[in-house]
Amino acid sequence: MTPGAGSPPPPGNRPLAVVLVSGGMDSLVTAAIAARSYEPAFLHLNYGQRTTGKELSCFRAIADHYGVTRRMEADLSHLAAIGGSSLTDRAMEVEQADLSRRGIPTSYVPFRNANLLSVAVSWAEVLGAKKIFIGAVEEDSSGYPDCRREFYAAFNEAVRLGTRPETDIEILTPVIGMTKSGIVKKGAELGVPFELTWSCYRSDEIACGECDSCALRLRGFREAGIRDPIPYAG
Amino acid sequence: MTPGAGSPPPPGNRPLAVVLVSGGMDSLVTAAIAARSYEPAFLHLNYGQRTTGKELSCFRAIADHYGVTRRMEADLSHLAAIGGSSLTDRAMEVEQADLSRRGIPTSYVPFRNANLLSVAVSWAEVLGAKKIFIGAVEEDSSGYPDCRREFYAAFNEAVRLGTRPETDIEILTPVIGMTKSGIVKKGAELGVPFELTWSCYRSDEIACGECDSCALRLRGFREAGIRDPIPYAG
Repeated sequence: MTPGAGSPPPPGNRPLAVVLVSGGMDSLVTAAIAARSYEPAFLHLNYGQRTTGKELSCFRAIADHYGVTRRMEADLSHLAAIGGSSLTDRAMEVEQADLSRRGIPTSYVPFRNANLLSVAVSWAEVLGAKKIFIGAVEEDSSGYPDCRREFYAAFNEAVRLGTRPETDIEILTPVIGMTKSGIVKKGAELGVPFELTWSCYRSDEIACGECDSCALRLRGFREAGIRDPIPYAG
Repeated sequence: MTPGAGSPPPPGNRPLAVVLVSGGMDSLVTAAIAARSYEPAFLHLNYGQRTTGKELSCFRAIADHYGVTRRMEADLSHLAAIGGSSLTDRAMEVEQADLSRRGIPTSYVPFRNANLLSVAVSWAEVLGAKKIFIGAVEEDSSGYPDCRREFYAAFNEAVRLGTRPETDIEILTPVIGMTKSGIVKKGAELGVPFELTWSCYRSDEIACGECDSCALRLRGFREAGIRDPIPYAG
């Protein structure tokens, strides 16, 4: 089949991009956006969070769905040893959702996204990929400091200065300004497999529906008028 | 014993600082500088380099020497899986020293220091430490991009923006402007145990004396007029 003028070029001719894929819906939609213009190399980093196994199986299913052959899975479980977050510390409880809560929730994993991005940059530099995609969401999110635009601008500057002069890597955050419902709509438009994603912070079998992450996801689907295909408790 | 006016306060009263300790001489001297004003928490990160085991045993010996109780050892061996460096890729040869060589040597581990610093920041945020010490050397070093002052300035900005607003962490590089001989002299002045350090990129038994790292170390001791206490081949 010869691609028509409007078709994307075949995978071999597209430039490479590293995409951080957690197994959640924001990174899935980000991956779908990346895959329109780039040959994606998928990176999954486990950091000892409660739902590690489930997220890894979602990552693999999503990578299979998109036929991604360049994949890397790595373990940053020292972030769990460091602790300080209800996501990684079993002694802390994951809070009930309160989307009007101000401040930074207990699920914040200290400086997590810098740890993830640093691995992505190392890999991109060796692969020769010039773009890195991450599904950070600033608005309508949980208020994590490492999900803000200013953080990515500063990190991009550190990347420019901390890699070889001929390296030209840029971190892109295509969904950072979207609401959760906007992300759901964008995903539906791109035909993403939402059924392969996981968002719950607490459980890895039936989503609790009650943690911040479930509450944000459910509200996003409700506002988008689209059915969430994963099962919820209760 | 009551401390006199000029004595450092007892350890319990000093503020905490995270110190990245590789097992080499630059980070040893950095640790000794940090220990004058802070209670040091030592962080050692293995990244799958050739001399991992030796460097870890040096780290432990140095931590014992300084009586450091807060220690963390973690594994970033995905950096070896990513490759791109003669330090981690057994298929690449570690070059013979050529201190007049221009450009970035094959021992550069892509964006390594950002990976190390990200872990240090996560730990510092949880510990409540406000300073992080790293023994990067800009001049008289091997020309690694992530050892330059500008990189640390940019990374500090990413730390400021990517951590909790009440977090106040600064990365310090006290030996960044020193020559190797200056570092040797500073270490001698502070009475550091150079015999507990390792610098060779190739061997973990008898230092080769021929890689860039050995050559820089030997020249530093020679110019400082101080005997290097570790054994060399040949």
